[in-house]
Amino acid sequence: MALTDFDLVLFGGSGDLSMRKLLPAMYARDAANDLLAESRIICVGLEACSQQDFLRMVETNAKPHIKAAALTPQVWARFCARLVYVSLNATDAASYGALAAALRPDQALTRVYYLATPPQLFARICENLAANQLVTPGSRVVLEKPLGRDLASARRINAEVGKVFAESQIYRIDHYLGKETVQNLLALRFGNILFEPLWRREWISDVQITIAEKLGVGNRLGYYDASGALRDMLQNHLLQLLCIVAMEPPTSIAPDAVRDAKLQVLRSLKKFTPTTLVQDIVRGQYRAGHVDGVSVPGYRDEPDAPDRSRTETFVALKAEIDTWRWAGVPFYLRTGKRMADSLAEIVVRFKSIPSSIFAQPAAKSQANCLVIRLQPDEGLSMNLMAKTPGDGMHLKPAELELDFREQFSTPRMEAYERLLLDVLRGQLTLFMRGDELEAAWEWVAPILDHWENDHSTPQPYAAGSWGPAASGALLGRDGLHWREETLPED
Amino acid sequence: MALTDFDLVLFGGSGDLSMRKLLPAMYARDAANDLLAESRIICVGLEACSQQDFLRMVETNAKPHIKAAALTPQVWARFCARLVYVSLNATDAASYGALAAALRPDQALTRVYYLATPPQLFARICENLAANQLVTPGSRVVLEKPLGRDLASARRINAEVGKVFAESQIYRIDHYLGKETVQNLLALRFGNILFEPLWRREWISDVQITIAEKLGVGNRLGYYDASGALRDMLQNHLLQLLCIVAMEPPTSIAPDAVRDAKLQVLRSLKKFTPTTLVQDIVRGQYRAGHVDGVSVPGYRDEPDAPDRSRTETFVALKAEIDTWRWAGVPFYLRTGKRMADSLAEIVVRFKSIPSSIFAQPAAKSQANCLVIRLQPDEGLSMNLMAKTPGDGMHLKPAELELDFREQFSTPRMEAYERLLLDVLRGQLTLFMRGDELEAAWEWVAPILDHWENDHSTPQPYAAGSWGPAASGALLGRDGLHWREETLPED
Repeated sequence: MALTDFDLVLFGGSGDLSMRKLLPAMYARDAANDLLAESRIICVGLEACSQQDFLRMVETNAKPHIKAAALTPQVWARFCARLVYVSLNATDAASYGALAAALRPDQALTRVYYLATPPQLFARICENLAANQLVTPGSRVVLEKPLGRDLASARRINAEVGKVFAESQIYRIDHYLGKETVQNLLALRFGNILFEPLWRREWISDVQITIAEKLGVGNRLGYYDASGALRDMLQNHLLQLLCIVAMEPPTSIAPDAVRDAKLQVLRSLKKFTPTTLVQDIVRGQYRAGHVDGVSVPGYRDEPDAPDRSRTETFVALKAEIDTWRWAGVPFYLRTGKRMADSLAEIVVRFKSIPSSIFAQPAAKSQANCLVIRLQPDEGLSMNLMAKTPGDGMHLKPAELELDFREQFSTPRMEAYERLLLDVLRGQLTLFMRGDELEAAWEWVAPILDHWENDHSTPQPYAAGSWGPAASGALLGRDGLHWREETLPED
Repeated sequence: MALTDFDLVLFGGSGDLSMRKLLPAMYARDAANDLLAESRIICVGLEACSQQDFLRMVETNAKPHIKAAALTPQVWARFCARLVYVSLNATDAASYGALAAALRPDQALTRVYYLATPPQLFARICENLAANQLVTPGSRVVLEKPLGRDLASARRINAEVGKVFAESQIYRIDHYLGKETVQNLLALRFGNILFEPLWRREWISDVQITIAEKLGVGNRLGYYDASGALRDMLQNHLLQLLCIVAMEPPTSIAPDAVRDAKLQVLRSLKKFTPTTLVQDIVRGQYRAGHVDGVSVPGYRDEPDAPDRSRTETFVALKAEIDTWRWAGVPFYLRTGKRMADSLAEIVVRFKSIPSSIFAQPAAKSQANCLVIRLQPDEGLSMNLMAKTPGDGMHLKPAELELDFREQFSTPRMEAYERLLLDVLRGQLTLFMRGDELEAAWEWVAPILDHWENDHSTPQPYAAGSWGPAASGALLGRDGLHWREETLPED
């Protein structure tokens, strides 16, 4: 679908996210002939760098992330012609002249400021844009995570960005919401009569949401050691996914309808108590181990890691939602680095059949399970019990892949591509509202405070494992287990 | 699974069913090494025929129906060695000597009398078997359809067969129950938590059961003209399928548990009234037309057809089940000859979503639909609305094939093969009990009486169509339509 004209300004335009995701996403839309000839992408960086050197950098760093099939010399030339490099010091209002010169003055033109920078810069950039009269009625701002490090800093960001941009101009990005299968989950839940009646405590046993990475902290140790898994992954991505699974039917998919429904979930999360803060949360830190057979160091042995760092590289917790729909259904969330596998998935486990009419006892029957895979590949599958063909009446688990790809000719879209398109069109549904952000921080705040004050240390786990043993025990206490431990037998 | 030893006696052993279905089914089990060397198949016919001539007949008439992959000279020789041809006059007790001689005297040995004969012979054969002391404790009898032509004759058959065999020895066969997908429907309904909560009036709009044939009456006109579609197909096959769809969870899959549950459905069918006898039943008779582009004659122009025959070759009706689960949900049944397609299917149509959160109105959303295909191929599919991949949130119907075949290594089994195995093992679950048979006749009796007495004639329909227009109108009155008229657009 063709886009109206725009100026897209990427702060951090020469950075990693820009090169790996944002520029390739824009290239894909250009190749699809969705961009007007006039539309401009203005990349902003601190370094002085000629236009020519910047294009060379794009060639080296961004081009390899573009799908080969879409690469033609014509489109590449057209795309490069849209790119403008502007050097400025984001904290210095006086240096914004070059940016002002690069922007078209039309007040109604869509103008997007994408802040792929550390959050400490958000307020300053917004302030400096305003000081230079660069915030037009057609302007939008995109904020990348992390959106603060606690409730106070999130509130500060909201307040300061809010001085310059109206809430309807602010796009807080969570790229998990741009994933095809997350949106298909909405389509399944609310486009079919089949799921909604079952989507509640009467029929669902538990929900498990996992984002696991094999990678360690890599070269992000400085940032990571000051934040940890709870801030880096759980407060945002995992809670957003939980909202999509748990929300009541929104009145429409209009942005505020969906965001109201998500907010209601966040506000219904059961508050932690001194007891559950200890019992229902597991934090871990990886020690040396093996990932894919390769020996890797422990977190505290990573370059520059503080000797006695108490930063968690793993967190698992049990959340409960105090509503008529969900009361008593545990939502187990976990995320970690240096895990046994890299995957992101949502597992909705249904209850077991109440009674078996078959020769096999009900306990031997595998409970139905909807698995929404987000990474490494995207997909939806349903575990069912089916009759083995032929003689007798023997039931065995079968995995039914809900693969809609072959039924549709339109290709899937990368999450960033989808979300950038939404920003350029002014479609806010898949972005977090300020009150959602604050509600999420509010809920995790007691955990951060508790860890800050209790002087405990994260539990060690071997790199390449599924986290500390306490993570399994967290579910074991409820008579359950994480799904990877129950993959169907052959 | 290996079978214990048996003598299987096929009355009508040189007939069509025996050659096309029963002997090939037994061969398949032989090829699978399931049969003991001693087990015998005794084919009984009226014609005098030498063993050698009979084997030649089997070679000509049965062998072509055996899967080529299973045919080896060794197994074929072994199979032929089991076959014994016995000539007798079924109505003449004195002629049973040769049969008595062929049977092994062991009282406990499984002995199966399979009566693939016209039903008028059932009573006489049973009587004559008893008179010759051929009914042992290990004996079973299999009755092929038609099981009577009305309630009185069905009762008579039950009573007369019942004088010789206990109910637990009587196997009333309905080969639709032997179909893999019918049994998988049981597995889905009762082996998974997902279906049962939705399987009721709150969520299901209507159920459509169709058995359609492109064929005309062929060389069965004599039989057919005296029975018609209601007796030939609806009273048995369609009602049995309705029972499987509609029954309450049986307490187990033990024969009487399942048959009690089916009986309860038959007894809960809403009785016809003088009004509904006229309004809710459509009967038709085909006229000349085109099937697959070939011109075919009308029913009354078939060889030997009575000029003014009032026999219906098509029947469609609306049934209702007066239970808490099903009250108000129409079950539309139809069957006919010379239809547009040959197919047998059960369509469970769910209600539409009550409200659409998407840009598309709820009315444009296709209702979910579970389709259980029995013929020509067997399969289960579910119609869902899913998001089209890529940009935006556009929902489109997608058909999800519940294909468990690739997940299981065991091959499927032909219905007759499965049912014969069940008889030989004494597994009654998939066979009709006497009271079920009578309940089914009881429900259709008023229709037969009404047609007998009202002097109306069936409505004409063109061969190669989906029946008389009144069949569509039957659903149209309820705001619905038969599914073949709503196949998804591309």
